Amino acid sequence: MIRVGIVGATGYTGVELLRLLAAHDGVEVVAATSRSAAGRRVDDAFPNLRGHYELEFTAPDPGRLADCDLVFFATPNGTAMQQVPALLDAGVRVVDVSADFRLRDAAEWSRWYGVEHACPERLAEAVYGLPELHREAIRGARLVANPGCYATAVQLGFLPLVETGCVDAGRLIADGKSGTSGAGRRERVDLLLAEASDSMRAYAAGGHRHGAEIAQGLRDAGGDGVGLTFVPHLAPMVRGIHATLYAELTAEHDVQALFEQRFAEEPFVDVLPAGSHPETRSVRGANHCRLAVHRPAGDGRRVIVLAVIDNLVKGAAGQAVQNLNLMCGLDESRGLDQVALLP
Amino acid sequence: MIRVGIVGATGYTGVELLRLLAAHDGVEVVAATSRSAAGRRVDDAFPNLRGHYELEFTAPDPGRLADCDLVFFATPNGTAMQQVPALLDAGVRVVDVSADFRLRDAAEWSRWYGVEHACPERLAEAVYGLPELHREAIRGARLVANPGCYATAVQLGFLPLVETGCVDAGRLIADGKSGTSGAGRRERVDLLLAEASDSMRAYAAGGHRHGAEIAQGLRDAGGDGVGLTFVPHLAPMVRGIHATLYAELTAEHDVQALFEQRFAEEPFVDVLPAGSHPETRSVRGANHCRLAVHRPAGDGRRVIVLAVIDNLVKGAAGQAVQNLNLMCGLDESRGLDQVALLP
Amino acid sequence: MIRVGIVGATGYTGVELLRLLAAHDGVEVVAATSRSAAGRRVDDAFPNLRGHYELEFTAPDPGRLADCDLVFFATPNGTAMQQVPALLDAGVRVVDVSADFRLRDAAEWSRWYGVEHACPERLAEAVYGLPELHREAIRGARLVANPGCYATAVQLGFLPLVETGCVDAGRLIADGKSGTSGAGRRERVDLLLAEASDSMRAYAAGGHRHGAEIAQGLRDAGGDGVGLTFVPHLAPMVRGIHATLYAELTAEHDVQALFEQRFAEEPFVDVLPAGSHPETRSVRGANHCRLAVHRPAGDGRRVIVLAVIDNLVKGAAGQAVQNLNLMCGLDESRGLDQVALLP
Amino acid sequence: MIRVGIVGATGYTGVELLRLLAAHDGVEVVAATSRSAAGRRVDDAFPNLRGHYELEFTAPDPGRLADCDLVFFATPNGTAMQQVPALLDAGVRVVDVSADFRLRDAAEWSRWYGVEHACPERLAEAVYGLPELHREAIRGARLVANPGCYATAVQLGFLPLVETGCVDAGRLIADGKSGTSGAGRRERVDLLLAEASDSMRAYAAGGHRHGAEIAQGLRDAGGDGVGLTFVPHLAPMVRGIHATLYAELTAEHDVQALFEQRFAEEPFVDVLPAGSHPETRSVRGANHCRLAVHRPAGDGRRVIVLAVIDNLVKGAAGQAVQNLNLMCGLDESRGLDQVALLP
Repeated sequence: MIRVGIVGATGYTGVELLRLLAAHDGVEVVAATSRSAAGRRVDDAFPNLRGHYELEFTAPDPGRLADCDLVFFATPNGTAMQQVPALLDAGVRVVDVSADFRLRDAAEWSRWYGVEHACPERLAEAVYGLPELHREAIRGARLVANPGCYATAVQLGFLPLVETGCVDAGRLIADGKSGTSGAGRRERVDLLLAEASDSMRAYAAGGHRHGAEIAQGLRDAGGDGVGLTFVPHLAPMVRGIHATLYAELTAEHDVQALFEQRFAEEPFVDVLPAGSHPETRSVRGANHCRLAVHRPAGDGRRVIVLAVIDNLVKGAAGQAVQNLNLMCGLDESRGLDQVALLP
Repeated sequence: MIRVGIVGATGYTGVELLRLLAAHDGVEVVAATSRSAAGRRVDDAFPNLRGHYELEFTAPDPGRLADCDLVFFATPNGTAMQQVPALLDAGVRVVDVSADFRLRDAAEWSRWYGVEHACPERLAEAVYGLPELHREAIRGARLVANPGCYATAVQLGFLPLVETGCVDAGRLIADGKSGTSGAGRRERVDLLLAEASDSMRAYAAGGHRHGAEIAQGLRDAGGDGVGLTFVPHLAPMVRGIHATLYAELTAEHDVQALFEQRFAEEPFVDVLPAGSHPETRSVRGANHCRLAVHRPAGDGRRVIVLAVIDNLVKGAAGQAVQNLNLMCGLDESRGLDQVALLP
Repeated sequence: MIRVGIVGATGYTGVELLRLLAAHDGVEVVAATSRSAAGRRVDDAFPNLRGHYELEFTAPDPGRLADCDLVFFATPNGTAMQQVPALLDAGVRVVDVSADFRLRDAAEWSRWYGVEHACPERLAEAVYGLPELHREAIRGARLVANPGCYATAVQLGFLPLVETGCVDAGRLIADGKSGTSGAGRRERVDLLLAEASDSMRAYAAGGHRHGAEIAQGLRDAGGDGVGLTFVPHLAPMVRGIHATLYAELTAEHDVQALFEQRFAEEPFVDVLPAGSHPETRSVRGANHCRLAVHRPAGDGRRVIVLAVIDNLVKGAAGQAVQNLNLMCGLDESRGLDQVALLP
Repeated sequence: MIRVGIVGATGYTGVELLRLLAAHDGVEVVAATSRSAAGRRVDDAFPNLRGHYELEFTAPDPGRLADCDLVFFATPNGTAMQQVPALLDAGVRVVDVSADFRLRDAAEWSRWYGVEHACPERLAEAVYGLPELHREAIRGARLVANPGCYATAVQLGFLPLVETGCVDAGRLIADGKSGTSGAGRRERVDLLLAEASDSMRAYAAGGHRHGAEIAQGLRDAGGDGVGLTFVPHLAPMVRGIHATLYAELTAEHDVQALFEQRFAEEPFVDVLPAGSHPETRSVRGANHCRLAVHRPAGDGRRVIVLAVIDNLVKGAAGQAVQNLNLMCGLDESRGLDQVALLP
């Protein structure tokens, strides 16, 4: 059994890790830390876990975490970078589900996150944990930077187009819609049901952190001169990301075949039949990304990609477990066979 | 492998059976019938099932169903009673998730459902499929009448009080709140998101079918002179039933201990600590009923029970699988270890 | 023009007062106070008010408020009782929409609200602002205690039964369901969309402040020996209260006629035809309470009343404006002719 | 008093017209037709209207409608074109809120709507009812084609850019999100709360009728070589459209000033301060379109426009009343001063 710890286990990513790992028979959760809930039983705070855990939340304790085989950081940005170096030095592998190790350029990271990076020398070691792009590197990694939720959906949707160079990489547009759990389990008035329900709005239309992460990923995939416009929106739902992607083909191309071939062997990327419109609920609680590709009639070389994920699963905790499986030599899909909850 | 068929597989109960059975390693679904969707792949109609089924919906075909070990009826009321006798005669066991075999009195059934019963002679054979009350009878049954969703929550909440005779059985009140999936996957304007969202209303306040079912069950449990007032409400949510139950103790009683003892061995009934208020989402997608008992301060001998279930799981498809497990000699919990999806 | 001030104008009751008063041609809002938003334009914080107000929020300033004809307190409990005496002494009339003056017994108030009352000597002067019960007293009042939202719906629904003494007043049950705006515009994790959406739960089943307020009101209406069980529930919607009321008739009675007669002249209480089930959305944004009465078949002398209001209108700001109209000699319905928003 | 009729008054546009006209003191609704609800009181079908109408729905009756000064068609597409010519000939003015007269080219109309147009000779006479573009023509019109909901939001957002020619008109992208009331009050399973709630999806990504309408409008506004990609999405909310518009400036431009100047005199178009992100709820129930313009940092000449409307008000019934006001010489804003319902 792989002994894992979860730092910041009372946020949405943390409790989703607990839900998923309850169904993973190769892993034992030995530590779940939370400053605010220390001493409280996990299943008292989250009654859906009753019967699945005897664990209590504990205050963060480096010694206890050093005793784990692998530690997930499900913390607010800025925490993992303080604690990861010591854990790595103690021989513990780390999957950071926060944003601390996602950008390789420390200066760019600081620009978007507003503070100096605490361990810029470790950025080079971190492997970006998108298995569909970096599977082999993840297998050998000690430190994996788990992608952001928007970044996962947008990169998966653009990958085949950018890798083959068949679109104008300088004119990519990603219109993202996210459920409110993507903003975290935080005391924010604007996320109250009475505020966010029955309404929609964009945010960060002037520039968003995830834009930088996506652009880096697309450059990794071969996209020279990537220019990306990214506008995220808050949708009145709990879970789910719907990314609507717009690009222009530089030449005619059978994009449906391109997508089907690119992801034919991927366990968690599902290319739908031509003409489909995936719903976010079709992946609610599941680790899949479902994709559809459209060429609108009479619209020149426009190509549209629709990508849906559950922001807490393929966009966070599920992908983190997928990375754990790869890092620890387990079957990549282990513990990730949940069927999406529909209706 | 137990070979099962699902009649009426495109309704919410049917597709939930498909979801749950995809995770049940002792069962193979060999037939899923639907007049409207015949010839269509199961995972085309319900994309959450992609990767889990190769099956196509078929038109109802008695021969094919007779080839099953067990058949679930997930049909509108009035269908199962037409087809069940022939299946039973062919040696097939049946779990009817519709209401056709829930009332033992054919005349009462006709009064509530508006038509003559098609096989009143089979009513006596049907075992009411509430395992917490009739476990042994279910094990030996050929025909199980799966309880209604409200009826499951209300009976489980009243059982300890009625069995011990510690409340005035003639003054029971059940105030039920249900998500709209409880009304089925039907083309009804009043169930549209634009109609049912952001609003609440009672219905059938003048008398509801489930009242008769609940009263029968409570009489079985020893409740002499049962008098029940039951008002169901439509709540703006997809899944979930919250039953708020009101009774009057005839003498002082430690009701918390009573409930804990009554359900101590039950795998799917979870009595919460004193003072709790269960949320329906704490059982979303899971087969559990969570209960809490309250004695409001300064309110004499009033006892309040709060009961939550997922109407599609413990209130329908999950309980049906639980019944299959009992009927087929499998572990009662097999395939039913889903952790509720929260948030 | 009546010059009014609103203290605590950034909460839901405050902003609803601003919405309603924008349509009231006999009133001018001259002060809207908020510690947190002082200096910010009202329509910057609440863009729905753009074009309707030039006002800025100001820090609370007793002098400025003393310059008003009437001041609304839309503050958290415990604030109004600190400031109201000085305003009354300055000749300003007050409608307190918080709970500070709702209970006439200071000891009982302290028990429920956890602090000593700051001006118990003023409690006797406060008129309970339910126009359907205390219209004449409100007309002459200097200080009106605006009823709570649950209390409004429950009292209106029980009034005809309790006033005529035709029910067993010792066995009243009120099952209340409220949208989350009833909990206020507060930074609370449990009210986040991601927590409260698609779920239901009871709260305070062991006893709730509003129970004491309702019982006091029903005693005023002639209910000797009132015994009330009240369980509130949080429903996944923004606005709306649905109260389901259970009582037992002591003798046969035409309750439909009773209700129709009792409220025949009331501008804001609407008794629906027999057999109706009012939806909360039918009063969304409007100052009406809609009622329906049921006598369930085969259920002895049980009577069920269904009452719906918008918790922010008839349950708070709308009733406060109705009280202002009465206090200031205006037509009781002035500024309150909004049609409910449906769908 | 202007005597108006509403054909198809039980759909969402029809009942919204009834709501708005209840508050319009220059208009009397003398006929509301509905085949399905003929003989039923308007306020029995829609209880929010209780106290506002004595009217009954009637079967469509050309004679009765010919007696009106103005008739609104709130019918499914294909109905108005059958009945409008006779009404015009009888001297009745018409606002068609369906799509029958929105496209000037009968062949294009047939291509999108799948049937021959019944009166192509009347298309030239119809004035496209977007007051911000065609105010003067509307004043003199006998027949106004009320714009579609998406079309209203998208055109208003692109107008200043296209009119001044400062963007590449061949590369316009509109990503639209709509509440489900936009799909009408129809018995469709995919619009059930249990299907459409807590989920998002695109539809018609391969080409949508509204695309043609928008392109025609933008060409009218001076957009040579308009090329538009338009993808609509279904959002889990009742009302509201959020249009996110993407364009490329051909030269540097102060777009904030451009928008403010363009709409300075418009009563129902509200340009928000720079940096704003309008919420759809800020116009819930109101006739306003709120706009914000963004130039994302480091993104070349990209300009993003965010536009929100209530699809049933500015996107349908409200704009229809605005057109009535213009056609009948009333103040353009009469009866349209509702404050949006927030929260």
